[in-house]
Amino acid sequence: MHFEPTKKVTQLKEQLNSFMEKHILPADVEFRQITETGTYPIELIDRLKVLARKEGLWNLFLPGLKNNEPGTRLSNMEYAPLAEIMGRYPWASEVFNCSAPDTGNMELLHLFATPEQEQTWLKPLLDGSIRSAVSITEPDVASSDPTNLQTTIERDGDHFVINGKKWFTTGALHPNFKFTMVLGISDQNEDSPRHQRHSFVIVPAETEGLRIIRNLPIMNHFALEGHCELEFNDVKVPITHLVGEEGKGFALAQARLGPGRVHHCMRTIGQCERALELMCQRALDRQAFGRNLSEFSNIQDWIAESRMEIDQARLLNLYASWLMDTQGNKAARILISEIKVVATRLQTRVLDRAIQVWGAAGLTNDTPLSYLWSWGRALRFIDGPDEVHLRSIARAELKNYNTNSGQ
Amino acid sequence: MHFEPTKKVTQLKEQLNSFMEKHILPADVEFRQITETGTYPIELIDRLKVLARKEGLWNLFLPGLKNNEPGTRLSNMEYAPLAEIMGRYPWASEVFNCSAPDTGNMELLHLFATPEQEQTWLKPLLDGSIRSAVSITEPDVASSDPTNLQTTIERDGDHFVINGKKWFTTGALHPNFKFTMVLGISDQNEDSPRHQRHSFVIVPAETEGLRIIRNLPIMNHFALEGHCELEFNDVKVPITHLVGEEGKGFALAQARLGPGRVHHCMRTIGQCERALELMCQRALDRQAFGRNLSEFSNIQDWIAESRMEIDQARLLNLYASWLMDTQGNKAARILISEIKVVATRLQTRVLDRAIQVWGAAGLTNDTPLSYLWSWGRALRFIDGPDEVHLRSIARAELKNYNTNSGQ
Amino acid sequence: MHFEPTKKVTQLKEQLNSFMEKHILPADVEFRQITETGTYPIELIDRLKVLARKEGLWNLFLPGLKNNEPGTRLSNMEYAPLAEIMGRYPWASEVFNCSAPDTGNMELLHLFATPEQEQTWLKPLLDGSIRSAVSITEPDVASSDPTNLQTTIERDGDHFVINGKKWFTTGALHPNFKFTMVLGISDQNEDSPRHQRHSFVIVPAETEGLRIIRNLPIMNHFALEGHCELEFNDVKVPITHLVGEEGKGFALAQARLGPGRVHHCMRTIGQCERALELMCQRALDRQAFGRNLSEFSNIQDWIAESRMEIDQARLLNLYASWLMDTQGNKAARILISEIKVVATRLQTRVLDRAIQVWGAAGLTNDTPLSYLWSWGRALRFIDGPDEVHLRSIARAELKNYNTNSGQ
Amino acid sequence: MHFEPTKKVTQLKEQLNSFMEKHILPADVEFRQITETGTYPIELIDRLKVLARKEGLWNLFLPGLKNNEPGTRLSNMEYAPLAEIMGRYPWASEVFNCSAPDTGNMELLHLFATPEQEQTWLKPLLDGSIRSAVSITEPDVASSDPTNLQTTIERDGDHFVINGKKWFTTGALHPNFKFTMVLGISDQNEDSPRHQRHSFVIVPAETEGLRIIRNLPIMNHFALEGHCELEFNDVKVPITHLVGEEGKGFALAQARLGPGRVHHCMRTIGQCERALELMCQRALDRQAFGRNLSEFSNIQDWIAESRMEIDQARLLNLYASWLMDTQGNKAARILISEIKVVATRLQTRVLDRAIQVWGAAGLTNDTPLSYLWSWGRALRFIDGPDEVHLRSIARAELKNYNTNSGQ
Repeated sequence: MHFEPTKKVTQLKEQLNSFMEKHILPADVEFRQITETGTYPIELIDRLKVLARKEGLWNLFLPGLKNNEPGTRLSNMEYAPLAEIMGRYPWASEVFNCSAPDTGNMELLHLFATPEQEQTWLKPLLDGSIRSAVSITEPDVASSDPTNLQTTIERDGDHFVINGKKWFTTGALHPNFKFTMVLGISDQNEDSPRHQRHSFVIVPAETEGLRIIRNLPIMNHFALEGHCELEFNDVKVPITHLVGEEGKGFALAQARLGPGRVHHCMRTIGQCERALELMCQRALDRQAFGRNLSEFSNIQDWIAESRMEIDQARLLNLYASWLMDTQGNKAARILISEIKVVATRLQTRVLDRAIQVWGAAGLTNDTPLSYLWSWGRALRFIDGPDEVHLRSIARAELKNYNTNSGQ
Repeated sequence: MHFEPTKKVTQLKEQLNSFMEKHILPADVEFRQITETGTYPIELIDRLKVLARKEGLWNLFLPGLKNNEPGTRLSNMEYAPLAEIMGRYPWASEVFNCSAPDTGNMELLHLFATPEQEQTWLKPLLDGSIRSAVSITEPDVASSDPTNLQTTIERDGDHFVINGKKWFTTGALHPNFKFTMVLGISDQNEDSPRHQRHSFVIVPAETEGLRIIRNLPIMNHFALEGHCELEFNDVKVPITHLVGEEGKGFALAQARLGPGRVHHCMRTIGQCERALELMCQRALDRQAFGRNLSEFSNIQDWIAESRMEIDQARLLNLYASWLMDTQGNKAARILISEIKVVATRLQTRVLDRAIQVWGAAGLTNDTPLSYLWSWGRALRFIDGPDEVHLRSIARAELKNYNTNSGQ
Repeated sequence: MHFEPTKKVTQLKEQLNSFMEKHILPADVEFRQITETGTYPIELIDRLKVLARKEGLWNLFLPGLKNNEPGTRLSNMEYAPLAEIMGRYPWASEVFNCSAPDTGNMELLHLFATPEQEQTWLKPLLDGSIRSAVSITEPDVASSDPTNLQTTIERDGDHFVINGKKWFTTGALHPNFKFTMVLGISDQNEDSPRHQRHSFVIVPAETEGLRIIRNLPIMNHFALEGHCELEFNDVKVPITHLVGEEGKGFALAQARLGPGRVHHCMRTIGQCERALELMCQRALDRQAFGRNLSEFSNIQDWIAESRMEIDQARLLNLYASWLMDTQGNKAARILISEIKVVATRLQTRVLDRAIQVWGAAGLTNDTPLSYLWSWGRALRFIDGPDEVHLRSIARAELKNYNTNSGQ
Repeated sequence: MHFEPTKKVTQLKEQLNSFMEKHILPADVEFRQITETGTYPIELIDRLKVLARKEGLWNLFLPGLKNNEPGTRLSNMEYAPLAEIMGRYPWASEVFNCSAPDTGNMELLHLFATPEQEQTWLKPLLDGSIRSAVSITEPDVASSDPTNLQTTIERDGDHFVINGKKWFTTGALHPNFKFTMVLGISDQNEDSPRHQRHSFVIVPAETEGLRIIRNLPIMNHFALEGHCELEFNDVKVPITHLVGEEGKGFALAQARLGPGRVHHCMRTIGQCERALELMCQRALDRQAFGRNLSEFSNIQDWIAESRMEIDQARLLNLYASWLMDTQGNKAARILISEIKVVATRLQTRVLDRAIQVWGAAGLTNDTPLSYLWSWGRALRFIDGPDEVHLRSIARAELKNYNTNSGQ
């Protein structure tokens, strides 16, 4: 055991940091100016993507790339510090073809796509020429318990017919959006095992019967790429659009969510570091009652608590990544739940402290704090609410205890 | 000591509750539809104001009304449960001419206005025919320590000349906005006592040199009535626009803030109750892992914690109000700081729990939770950040200890 | 509604405060010196009891005293501030014949005793010439759910025969201990309603088969009056020792626990005030890094938080007491649960802060902080663990919601 | 970077675990029986020490052992998991010659002892034939700011004369106690630099003028080895008893405290694991309201929170240890402060949850929970109160920010 990063990672960190400083930071103002007009800044992104790919900063998230697929071939643990750097600017990941939910979709297709699916959907995703979405959660049931899901996927000859409602399908309004991966009940027999009745199918963007009902705001932020509510009304896709086997939808969803969850956490930690820097900056800049805010011990305590919590979360994240790398996503399941809960709760906590140090300015859009907090709050639901993960962790702990104590 | 409300209050509560059910709740959808188009629903409000005033539900907040002034003449403690009811719907208070910051301005003018000021500014405020604002906090200094304020109010013959920047001036974009009360340094001598250099002056809306720079978002909510950043560039007002005495600005600000702070807290508690109801509703409606959410003991704990905290905050609020009524705002100063911290922190805590029970839906605008949380977060700065009040409470406690222990 | 205490209470507070200063504080050192030798300072207590009774400071806790019974005849709300004063010194209550568990036993006997029981057990209790105990909780089951209790009370002719184990029977080692009230299953039929199978019987101290197994330490404090584990081995008492009706044990326990719980909370708040004073004292006395501890804003925050929390808890306690006085113990049930959770958790929180301000000295017995904390920790179990009360509060809230929303 | 332990560590963990099971666990009952009689179980310990040393489980804590000194020669990071195992039973470390404060003294002497000191004091310590203490903190000043220390060490010819009071000198009542290392002001010139006026001297146990005033209880636990208050009344020691250079006392204290602090944290994490096991055990054993406690989601949350917090603390501890190993104790200073705060606060939090799950039994001595909690509470002062470490962490963070942002 040791904590020295490999040379490869050290070098990539430097390169990425330099790219951020040279290209992302200067573009951040432009990015915000364009988005404020209600337009997705696709030209800006495309321009930067060319630069990133040229530098080899491309598909950094995906470990198992095959022969000619473009990317860095890093392990999850190697990717972690890089995701943290990208995560400081929430829009930056797309520039490196590392943004959710595409990363998860690429992982899934990488593992389970048929050759045809590979050619049609995975290749353009890896090239960054299209974007995709994933449709799991539903408005009418507690999707935290996925056996509640109600969307149906029924076989009709050579096709599947999909009916139901999904929401929080992120990316469905992106200019390059081409398909969403839909999880639904493919086995209508209620006596079948509850976790083996669901399947994943690819639904192309323009399919008849697929309707975007609305773009859902997150704490009043309406994302331009969309967090959409979708209606599937007799949506028909060929059976070749099935991903993996019928009835294995949950297993796939789990496989998909592992690394995806950890990627979110990595980026989240980057946001915490940025908030902590902003906290220090303001504390050093402002005076009250004759002293800098940085000299008040309550504000010092917030800074120290943030530092301690961030350091711990980062280590937990690295450990979870290492477990995925060495023992597989399934064996890392509980650690992934742990970092999921830890990192997302931490984000809103650190951000809230930073807002408080900034005073009323922290509520406005003059700093990134307000937006980042909102995103952190959403992360406490994305990939499952805290409570579901706490439940898994506790049940695993109790089971472990029983095993070890021979009960 | 007893906790039985007076008949007067009991009757007014019933009347107000019935008004809310009959008029406010049905109008809430309309209100939101209009505001979503970016228009302040002034006709709707005006229509309801007529009804409220006809019923005598008018100026409920102002204890010391004179002979022919319209209103209920309630004490602060009597007003508290009514403010709580109005507060459940954040836009409702205006219907009863009880909305901030006008209530504070009316209080201040009631105490300190010259007969001319009374006629020109107070009377139409009491009649609800105009709206007003207050400009204290500034973007460039930590306004939590008000001796930091930099806006200048300089005497020039029969006029004051005002220069500086203010922000979070709420209401400056309201269709009926007519004036703002500005706090600034009127005594430029830096050797004068630090708390006796500031004055309050009335600046009419259309005065030359007064410019609305922008409407500030609060956690991405842009209020239609505006939380505005204002520039005062050689703004000239007659010296008759001085409120109270020169150099007494802080004393007035304190007098103004006392009841105003408590009104915010009263409304806040109403919002907490509404959030707790929504929490119960969802917990009873949703199922996960084979049981209603309401049967999970962690969610039960959130409900119980919310109930205990709300009950305590309400009692503290009533006690602070009673102290103001019986011993004056100054004697109640520390209790006002206490309830200010308690109620506003409580709001975001209860709202956050409710959001968590609602799942991702809680992030959207499908429930009022997201907006209310944002407002609660802002309340942790409005009328002074938590930290300033905690400091006052602690210093009072230490002083008390010293006095009692004879040190 | 108002918060002005009655003249009677104001006068009694002054009298009690003066008694505390004149008699209790000077005796505190002596009390501790004697107890450190392992002897219960019964002479000291007896001497002070004579003084207290002579002053009329006697049985202040019991509202419904009959004709010639000695005591103040205060309501629960009137008693609250007096209990708070007594509670500052944990041993003081006995001097005024106001100590647990005797107060609860007197309440219960007052309501349900037969004339014979009144003469034999209640009268000497009211006179303070004997002490008593109550035996409810058991070592082998989760007594938080009282239907779990296993001790049996079986009818055998003119006697009840009691078998089982009880623990945390407080007072069984007190020199004046004369009887304990035992709750057990009197109806062995498992098909009977679960809440109507238990009865209360009086078991005199010297009864054959009753054995004190051991004195249980509470966080390593071994109370001289004992928190005892008892064994009942074919213990026989005449059927005249039944209190109230057979099968009504739970109803009696509930009746008994209401005021008793609130008394604990009242005393607890007194302990919090004492801890806050000690916190201020030390913060003003000690210097670190060139400033008094009282000038560090993190320590100021602890002081302010304590003040806000204590003020709220006290108001909640008064409100719960008022509800008991005006609507009965049953109607006040949820409020009693609320104050129970609030006050006991608060105690350990405030005490822990005080310990931290005192540094390592706070861990020793040089201040009362260490002992008081331990007692506060115990209070989170005495009269039921927090979790049971939170559950009751939540269930009541959910039921209320259902009723109000017409579901 | 990777998390795979070395073979050496894996093997030592197995060996140590097996020793614990074979020798420590069976002796635990005996240990407690003897201590309850007020006798330090020195024969028991000595017997086990022979076994441990024979197995090579000896001085595991000390990295830089010289040629013929006995011990394992592990790095701090290698020692961490072993200290965790020993820490589960607070008395076990002595068996492996790894108990505080001797470990810190051995470290210090290892670095700074003269050949004579090595022979006289270090060698028998490494052999486990004597025990030692350290006297830093004082009753009359806030020792968290060590420049406050008042004990004087004055040169008088070939001797130092020591005057002052120390407290919390752990081990001074141990049967093998032979000397304490005293930190005091050796440079009486108040104009000298504040951090260069103190020195460390060795004071043998039997020196005239050294008096043990009393054994201080920690939350009412009176340790048999003593946490003692000492008086130094013209205590004379030869100048050869000076450790390191005159005026370098602080530098030495810092050097000494680094690894010592981390050792405490390692053991603490072992205690947290033990508490979590006990929590699971009880949750699985007890029933309330018809279900096992382990099925209540609030208790599941406590288990999950504990697991997440322990995992993070352990990783932080390993990281801090690795920094000490690779970059030295000074470079690891902030990380040591972090783990110090994190681990000790965590201990009382996890222990408190375990106590709550155990119900009133958790308060007694029937489980180790009560004692362990008390020890955890003390650890929040030992090696400096939380607040001092939070201050250091914050100041380092602010300084870092300034450096990185070029201010």
